[in-house]
Amino acid sequence: MTANTFGGVLVPALTPFKSNHDVDADALLTHCRWLLDQGVDGLAVFGTTSEANSLSVTERIDLLEHLLDNGIPADKLMPGTGMCAITDTVSLTRHAVEHGCRGVLMLPPFYYKAINDDGLFASYAEVIERVGNSALNVYLYHIPPVSQISLSLDLIGRLLEAYPGTVVGLKDSSGDWDNTSAVLREYPSLATFCGSEVFLLETMRNGGAGSITATANINAAQIRQLFSTWQDDGAEDLQARITRTRRTYEAFPTIPALKAVAADFYGAADWRTVRPPLLSLDAGQQETLVGSFVKVGFEMGA
Amino acid sequence: MTANTFGGVLVPALTPFKSNHDVDADALLTHCRWLLDQGVDGLAVFGTTSEANSLSVTERIDLLEHLLDNGIPADKLMPGTGMCAITDTVSLTRHAVEHGCRGVLMLPPFYYKAINDDGLFASYAEVIERVGNSALNVYLYHIPPVSQISLSLDLIGRLLEAYPGTVVGLKDSSGDWDNTSAVLREYPSLATFCGSEVFLLETMRNGGAGSITATANINAAQIRQLFSTWQDDGAEDLQARITRTRRTYEAFPTIPALKAVAADFYGAADWRTVRPPLLSLDAGQQETLVGSFVKVGFEMGA
Repeated sequence: MTANTFGGVLVPALTPFKSNHDVDADALLTHCRWLLDQGVDGLAVFGTTSEANSLSVTERIDLLEHLLDNGIPADKLMPGTGMCAITDTVSLTRHAVEHGCRGVLMLPPFYYKAINDDGLFASYAEVIERVGNSALNVYLYHIPPVSQISLSLDLIGRLLEAYPGTVVGLKDSSGDWDNTSAVLREYPSLATFCGSEVFLLETMRNGGAGSITATANINAAQIRQLFSTWQDDGAEDLQARITRTRRTYEAFPTIPALKAVAADFYGAADWRTVRPPLLSLDAGQQETLVGSFVKVGFEMGA
Repeated sequence: MTANTFGGVLVPALTPFKSNHDVDADALLTHCRWLLDQGVDGLAVFGTTSEANSLSVTERIDLLEHLLDNGIPADKLMPGTGMCAITDTVSLTRHAVEHGCRGVLMLPPFYYKAINDDGLFASYAEVIERVGNSALNVYLYHIPPVSQISLSLDLIGRLLEAYPGTVVGLKDSSGDWDNTSAVLREYPSLATFCGSEVFLLETMRNGGAGSITATANINAAQIRQLFSTWQDDGAEDLQARITRTRRTYEAFPTIPALKAVAADFYGAADWRTVRPPLLSLDAGQQETLVGSFVKVGFEMGA
């Protein structure tokens, strides 16, 4: 890790839509400002939770520029740039790095299946070489439950060796602690983030960099507090409280659930909107979810 | 089916790349002309086999215009237009229909998993309504082994009912004859194509429209002959010969194998190039593949 490497709690910021499914750039700006006020260390905009894979390349470029033009600091930004087509990944990555973004979170190409390590290595290598910018900091994005593509330990090692100083980190959203633990052990120089905050304490105890987690959209302050105090007495209790909050919404589809909570917090019904193929929670689900949070005494931003 | 509906043998035309992985638009034009000369009924450009999911939206738009500007008839074209993001799908679909393409082959959005029929219905509905053009003919693309998203019988029925005259056909690349058979039985008005020519005879016997198959890139004439003569004596023998040809290359990854055969046919080594994450066959595989075809007396274009 270098001085420029991200650490702490980063948020794959939800992307708000208007009721007609158009992007609401100003609502995103408001949300990003609120998250930074809550103390998060970075904004991993255009992640899975951001419905980035339901946004066009043009929409992502326009949104990123809207954030930058309105004062969101480039050194807080880690946009997702990995697309199915290398040419798209190159366009987004080049745009991000030329606008000063401190890092990018890069999915492997995910349409074709039965892909091996050589093919994935070639994909990342070609993107890095086409972008050709020494300021580029790549965070690998391992999320096999969704992408159906796995970044093996061996592949990570090959990329680190071939592109030191460019491949600097990894987000592990496998949900498999054994995998995160193996990455932390094998590659201590890599800035490794758990993709769920339920592993934050264990990640820190094993030399990790922090967490990039969907839940930070609604529970940023508590998660950030655990990052600051993980070596203190009471860290396990705080981890347990944080985990309980996540369990409260996990009975619902993640993105619609988080948007329902955000709609309640912002007092804006449009916030519930998701783009197809996702569907908003129905009224009954919304009521159950908000009721569950009331029961555990959770308030977004508390 | 209307008079304008496609029927017969369509080809998801391979997309040739230069050795630096840039698109070779002129080589694609040559290949499309050759396929039409071989008698195929349509060009399903930008399918899975075309590595369309390794092409950017801009690359697809430029390539389609290159074909049209150079005399490939719009009424022979069924470009693939389904992307992860509805906004991209709308851009490609609108472009295709405004340029007179007789149909489009539409993947469902395929990044997010655990998607239900309501979400898929909403996706197709929103694309069709945003495009808003009565000239649009949509062929649904069911390819769960790759997309990991399944188009259920019920979903197909709902789309047919909601958009009669727009949703006109389906390509079934499940590889599961039971599924194709059920679609043919339930929706006889739908132009249903098998995604593998090994099912062509059965598809025709059950009221299907034909086949849209990768193998037509190298064996178009024989497959087209079976489509013309499926009711004749000898159809089963011809089906068996066609199936044997497919089995000959199935031991290898499909796209690299077909490109290796095309490279041999066109005498152009660049034709072997695939974009990452795919990898070209190595020299040994290439030799084995060409040798296997020699053994069964196969010649591309014979």
